Amino acid sequence: MQRITESFEKHAFMHTLGAKLTNVESGEVVIEIPFRDDLVQQHGFLHAGVVTTVVDTACGYAALTQMPEGAEVVTVEFKVNFMAPAVGDLFVAKGSVVRAGKTLTVTQGDVYAITNDTKKQKHIATMQATMFAVVA
Amino acid sequence: MQRITESFEKHAFMHTLGAKLTNVESGEVVIEIPFRDDLVQQHGFLHAGVVTTVVDTACGYAALTQMPEGAEVVTVEFKVNFMAPAVGDLFVAKGSVVRAGKTLTVTQGDVYAITNDTKKQKHIATMQATMFAVVA
Amino acid sequence: MQRITESFEKHAFMHTLGAKLTNVESGEVVIEIPFRDDLVQQHGFLHAGVVTTVVDTACGYAALTQMPEGAEVVTVEFKVNFMAPAVGDLFVAKGSVVRAGKTLTVTQGDVYAITNDTKKQKHIATMQATMFAVVA
Amino acid sequence: MQRITESFEKHAFMHTLGAKLTNVESGEVVIEIPFRDDLVQQHGFLHAGVVTTVVDTACGYAALTQMPEGAEVVTVEFKVNFMAPAVGDLFVAKGSVVRAGKTLTVTQGDVYAITNDTKKQKHIATMQATMFAVVA
Repeated sequence: MQRITESFEKHAFMHTLGAKLTNVESGEVVIEIPFRDDLVQQHGFLHAGVVTTVVDTACGYAALTQMPEGAEVVTVEFKVNFMAPAVGDLFVAKGSVVRAGKTLTVTQGDVYAITNDTKKQKHIATMQATMFAVVA
Repeated sequence: MQRITESFEKHAFMHTLGAKLTNVESGEVVIEIPFRDDLVQQHGFLHAGVVTTVVDTACGYAALTQMPEGAEVVTVEFKVNFMAPAVGDLFVAKGSVVRAGKTLTVTQGDVYAITNDTKKQKHIATMQATMFAVVA
Repeated sequence: MQRITESFEKHAFMHTLGAKLTNVESGEVVIEIPFRDDLVQQHGFLHAGVVTTVVDTACGYAALTQMPEGAEVVTVEFKVNFMAPAVGDLFVAKGSVVRAGKTLTVTQGDVYAITNDTKKQKHIATMQATMFAVVA
Repeated sequence: MQRITESFEKHAFMHTLGAKLTNVESGEVVIEIPFRDDLVQQHGFLHAGVVTTVVDTACGYAALTQMPEGAEVVTVEFKVNFMAPAVGDLFVAKGSVVRAGKTLTVTQGDVYAITNDTKKQKHIATMQATMFAVVA
């Protein structure tokens, strides 16, 4: 799983957003991002684009855990449903492999908003994404 | 179209990314974002999440241009295909209304990468998105 | 759950395809369809459109189980990934509610192909769909 | 374009539905289907699955027109928005290539409902789909 953490280190936008890779297993990756005032949209909620960025990255790396050594992962496409406003102190994005193929891997992702006071988790977004294995 | 520009001003994440609203017409909105080193993924291309953020915002505001005064727009869901690496100096995202309904508006978006030297435009991403009109 | 079975009875296209409603619970519906020679595409596999039809219907009825009495369900949009050729003797589509809202319900669906000989299940398609509650 | 018409002939489900291939050009395919009572859902409208089937087929064949000789086309995934009830006498599905790649082709599709009396066209659905070239 070292290649995932090494790749994440090179991922400038993850650092710009303050996102952290918190778990990597075969077929599953978790990324967390704390709320920040400069990441919101016009209503003061975390921008759908930020939510999408972290769950896309989690799905991409989940796919990469099951690709051959030396492969790189590229997002072909994804679809996201936003189910509740992105309100909370911490956002946890989990990406999982649904089916790993030679060229294409189908993944599924979910984002949860956590509020510090209540420790309640709210399921705010769900993604279905297709990843491509670029083999050198 | 003043409400679009006013709303965009309050949109912190657009400023964080350095995105600018460059055109607003009824049913169509254009947002531009210059390349920046801190917005890239692990291969040095603009992150799919950044591309998605600007085209989602363009689609959302395109929908808002045709919603009643006082309405606010929320993204229900979107789907994006990434067709070429996001390589270029400037990225132009255009969002258009396909069908405006009372509650839901279907929009379509495209992102083009422009390289300063060559002035060539490359079509790098296409989005289909559903927007919700929140009427107070 | 009677309203689901009554609605399914009126659903001419389900009968045309030979599909059967085999389970209805709150938030989950299962529809099965046997393979038939007149439902295939050019390579002899069950057409993606047939697979989509049954899982869309399963997702729509799953959403309807959690809508108020008198409501009708309409599909806003869906996205399907086809993960393996639709080869088998029986196809089982399961639709589940991810989040039920007042107006919109997000659902998730899966289709499995079963081969009589081997009794093996293959996961051939996965759907993410948005349903609308039309309340009279 | 002969390979498209030959492939369409072998496409049993298109015949079952009564669909006809009415135009084939490089990068664009049109399929038409008349309304029929046995293709409706519970409200008497053409089933979303039928609408999807014809536009998926139009998009797949549009992609195939730009694939190398001997290639076969498989749907990776699609997303469809249903924008108005499928009410009409004839439904026309048009599929177009957005970007043709070596392995993957991105397509866009639209479905229009036509009413005989009024000759009015209504735009009822829009699709964004990814097609895969299987090269022997």
